[in-house]
Amino acid sequence: MKLLNGIDSPAALKDLTQQQLGHLAEEIREELIATVTRTGGHLASNLGVVELTLALHRVFRSPRDKIVWDVGHQCYVHKMLTGRRQQLATLRQYGGLSGYTCRDESEHDPFGAGHASTSVSAALGMATARDLASEHYHVVAVIGDGAITGGMALEALNHAGHLGSRLIVVLNHNGMSISPTVGALARILNKVRLDHRYHQAKEGGRWLIKSLPMGDNLWQVEQQFERALKGLVMPTMVWEEIGFTYVGPVDGHNIAEVEEALTQARDYPRGPTLVHVITTKGKGYSPAENDAVHFHGLSAKTAKAEAALTYSDVFARTVLKLSREDPKIVSITPAMPEGSCLNIVKHEFPDRFFDVGICEQHAITFAAGLAAQGFKPIVAIYSTFLQRAFDQVIHDVCLQDLPVIFAIDRAGIVGDDGKTHQGAFDISYLSMIPNLIVSAPKDENELQHLLYTAVRAEHPMAIRYPRCQVTGVEMDAALHEIPVGKGEIVREGKDIAIIAIGSMVMPALEAANELVSVGVDATVVNARFVKPLDTELILGVASRARQLITIEENSVIGGFGSMITALLRKEGMSNLPVRYLGIPDEFVEHGSQAIMRAKYKLDAKGIVWEILNIPGLVTV
Amino acid sequence: MKLLNGIDSPAALKDLTQQQLGHLAEEIREELIATVTRTGGHLASNLGVVELTLALHRVFRSPRDKIVWDVGHQCYVHKMLTGRRQQLATLRQYGGLSGYTCRDESEHDPFGAGHASTSVSAALGMATARDLASEHYHVVAVIGDGAITGGMALEALNHAGHLGSRLIVVLNHNGMSISPTVGALARILNKVRLDHRYHQAKEGGRWLIKSLPMGDNLWQVEQQFERALKGLVMPTMVWEEIGFTYVGPVDGHNIAEVEEALTQARDYPRGPTLVHVITTKGKGYSPAENDAVHFHGLSAKTAKAEAALTYSDVFARTVLKLSREDPKIVSITPAMPEGSCLNIVKHEFPDRFFDVGICEQHAITFAAGLAAQGFKPIVAIYSTFLQRAFDQVIHDVCLQDLPVIFAIDRAGIVGDDGKTHQGAFDISYLSMIPNLIVSAPKDENELQHLLYTAVRAEHPMAIRYPRCQVTGVEMDAALHEIPVGKGEIVREGKDIAIIAIGSMVMPALEAANELVSVGVDATVVNARFVKPLDTELILGVASRARQLITIEENSVIGGFGSMITALLRKEGMSNLPVRYLGIPDEFVEHGSQAIMRAKYKLDAKGIVWEILNIPGLVTV
Repeated sequence: MKLLNGIDSPAALKDLTQQQLGHLAEEIREELIATVTRTGGHLASNLGVVELTLALHRVFRSPRDKIVWDVGHQCYVHKMLTGRRQQLATLRQYGGLSGYTCRDESEHDPFGAGHASTSVSAALGMATARDLASEHYHVVAVIGDGAITGGMALEALNHAGHLGSRLIVVLNHNGMSISPTVGALARILNKVRLDHRYHQAKEGGRWLIKSLPMGDNLWQVEQQFERALKGLVMPTMVWEEIGFTYVGPVDGHNIAEVEEALTQARDYPRGPTLVHVITTKGKGYSPAENDAVHFHGLSAKTAKAEAALTYSDVFARTVLKLSREDPKIVSITPAMPEGSCLNIVKHEFPDRFFDVGICEQHAITFAAGLAAQGFKPIVAIYSTFLQRAFDQVIHDVCLQDLPVIFAIDRAGIVGDDGKTHQGAFDISYLSMIPNLIVSAPKDENELQHLLYTAVRAEHPMAIRYPRCQVTGVEMDAALHEIPVGKGEIVREGKDIAIIAIGSMVMPALEAANELVSVGVDATVVNARFVKPLDTELILGVASRARQLITIEENSVIGGFGSMITALLRKEGMSNLPVRYLGIPDEFVEHGSQAIMRAKYKLDAKGIVWEILNIPGLVTV
Repeated sequence: MKLLNGIDSPAALKDLTQQQLGHLAEEIREELIATVTRTGGHLASNLGVVELTLALHRVFRSPRDKIVWDVGHQCYVHKMLTGRRQQLATLRQYGGLSGYTCRDESEHDPFGAGHASTSVSAALGMATARDLASEHYHVVAVIGDGAITGGMALEALNHAGHLGSRLIVVLNHNGMSISPTVGALARILNKVRLDHRYHQAKEGGRWLIKSLPMGDNLWQVEQQFERALKGLVMPTMVWEEIGFTYVGPVDGHNIAEVEEALTQARDYPRGPTLVHVITTKGKGYSPAENDAVHFHGLSAKTAKAEAALTYSDVFARTVLKLSREDPKIVSITPAMPEGSCLNIVKHEFPDRFFDVGICEQHAITFAAGLAAQGFKPIVAIYSTFLQRAFDQVIHDVCLQDLPVIFAIDRAGIVGDDGKTHQGAFDISYLSMIPNLIVSAPKDENELQHLLYTAVRAEHPMAIRYPRCQVTGVEMDAALHEIPVGKGEIVREGKDIAIIAIGSMVMPALEAANELVSVGVDATVVNARFVKPLDTELILGVASRARQLITIEENSVIGGFGSMITALLRKEGMSNLPVRYLGIPDEFVEHGSQAIMRAKYKLDAKGIVWEILNIPGLVTV
């Protein structure tokens, strides 16, 4: 019988021997691999923390002690050990387990995540709450070496050192966040990874000092020297300087060693401690160990997804083409060279490609600095992560009207990743920013032309596109400019008008074709630009329609629909009834894009249904 | 004759002797003090960088070399030396000089600012552009010890160390950003400030090592020891570890010493360098030197402003009252204990008050952590700076529906600080976030009740209020809850309805009273809540009015007006004409609040004018 069957809660781990724990780790890996290669999800990051998770749950008492996982994509083992193993097969599916930590899901998830670099801030808040309430539990943040270089995590570490609260930060150091970690801090940390001699060096240094014939001053010097030597050979000193007690580094796949380090940290009487754990992403599954980037996040149907071209592919191919023609074009991505597909650009133009790490804020202002000196930076960023750089978009780019191009990938419903990753807001939060052009292509051919347009726009311009396969339209060989603020009518009809943006244009057209059978003849507009709107086109269409329907894969609050009604209102046409279709005022759960689009009536069938339900429109 | 009269550009500084420079610094201080105590503005920070600015302009050749001032509030001396001295008297006034750096204003301002921690990212972008274009100029970022702890600056330093670009970062270290700098990094830096013996220690350490009878291994050990000792006694090692060459620390008021350090950095052949300059905020003006916090930012009419109570005062007094009653209430501010007036809370409840430094992102998620453990955190933050934590508001607070209270100060038009500091967007960027309650009081009495309400709301709640004196209404002694989503009619009229939010309610009422004389009888609604809207009240009023006017001190795009029209549209009442008053789609220049509100018709007179200009409404 499987040992795992006996583990219904973390408490059940306490009595296991180290040998049993080793077996358990094997069983966990087997189940993880079997399940995640089927359901999709984050495989490599979870395989890397099997032993760490076991050790955490043996040394700490969850839910009394709070374990805060940064990002949360490495929490599958944690879920298996905290009563959610039976649901693992439902991972990331509609109604099933979330792929991240989630307060609603379990008392063992004290703080949810999805975006990187938040755990230390949250954990410090919890530790502060504990101290103010004179309670006694432990708070542990588990953060990767990629996420720890995010500015917010650095802010939190700085504050933790200042407050001196008891807080345990576990640095899960695998040298890869999603792609290999970049940055100077990574280099410091990697000194430890790469130099297996650190133990000897430490011991040797101590011996060296002890043998010095220095008399009375020896003791003081030795103390200094020991600290100093640690600083030279190991990155501990930086931690100790900012007020953390450093424990480690330890082999993250040796449960006993990890437990010992965690126990030391747990029992250390005061202040924050950092436990440095070295792990291997994808550990124990050779395909993942050898290619942790590919196995970072698996789609549910890997084989099919690999074969088909995505919007990201077309984006990157176009950037490559544009980069060949214009030496002023540079590409920037915050830690998404694979996700954005920009690796092909990196390969051909390594000097004009910048992966800045999980640092969205810096990515945008770095781009602004390049633009200020006449370059044309294209920042590839997911819609949900651009939220992290909202102020930089306003203050550094748009206020100065610098021509930075925001290539906003994963805009709209993202599917399995769920609430934290939806690109549900970008139209709303970008449309209110002066000087910014906001656009979305109806298909991949338009995407390439909009990119070409953006490079020539001489203003900041955002292009949002969905996470999905391309539509398969023919791609024009030659790129051309699309006049900024010009939409197009893709279908002429006499009854109603559907004004759609981006990914919703094709479903709207499909819906219009279906509506013919019930006697509704719809115009369909591809708006292309949310800002500036094609005033002439839209007012013309509006003047001929009985009813307007706007449709966007974005929140209906402050979104495309509200831009359209504001226009009608301003032009004295507010008596035309308008119906907004889009994402309602709620956080969108995880589930496949097809299911979620159907739920929100954001597919052809839903659009037909919505239109047929407009009172008085269809009289059958 | 003044030496300053001969300085029409930075080039004119090159031939001056050190003695003449000393005189020039005196003259600059005199002019600064005379001007800024009259115009208002940032005095102490500019007095602190007189010598540093002179040295920068002697060592570097602006505008060929790029000097990027972080925040930019310390750029007055820079402006005086770069052809803008004659306009200094127009500082921060409508049509006059900006109080910050501004690309539109001068070729000597290569990158504008206003918010903190952006300079290193921008400068790194420029340095990268220079290298890609094979050009040869210097890029210098000047950043304070407060701003450098902002996460974005840390991201940029990390990336700079990684890229190894030639870039000079000048750390202007005065131990105060606005308030004394907090955080563990500040403590490390202050070791240098506080320990005047660092020079001796460095020399002593070297001597000690050299005298060791260690034979062949000595040389290696010495090298290690020297580096290590620097790390112990000085903060250099942290910099050198992340790839910066460290120069300093130098006395920032000794021009020759600063010049020497800057020259060293300029002539260093490769990689980024950090020049550590120790300055005294308010230097040379004893009132400012003794109270740099007070003299950080002066209002144009200091005496009057001091006497009158502001919304910030009422906010802080209410928080104090609430804190006395409820031990779960904690206050958090990112570096604004004075601006937010929370110092009074800090004084009485030092354990429940947290100044986290210029770290807006961390402030919000730290609050979320506290809320997750049952506390009621109140985060006092300026509207413009909350943009920096947009993702944290969405991802860490609202997605988890944690009851964090956002006390949004300086919402609306802020006046003299101008474009970078306007609170023009918060209604728009907050209204689209699910779970968040968004409110604004019409006066200070309502502010206290809304705070009381927020503490009981059990959901995240934002309360925005303006930067200004209170209205002077009577303050209720007892606090009471205002039902969430309930507005009020403050004037009944039969012709039109003005639906106002927050700071615009009183001007709307005043306008309504004036409109009587031209025969327009207006209803005025105090909406109180942008979200949820008081549906019943608004629909009732709308059903009785011929025309609706919405008014908000916020962008009209995606703002309060669009929430109202969305409601009318949904309820089939979109045929009622609605006119939005608010901030148009542009960045609002600096100028007094009165002038700017008049410009945008956001005062009683402007509202009257707007209403009288609605076609067909008034038939006189």
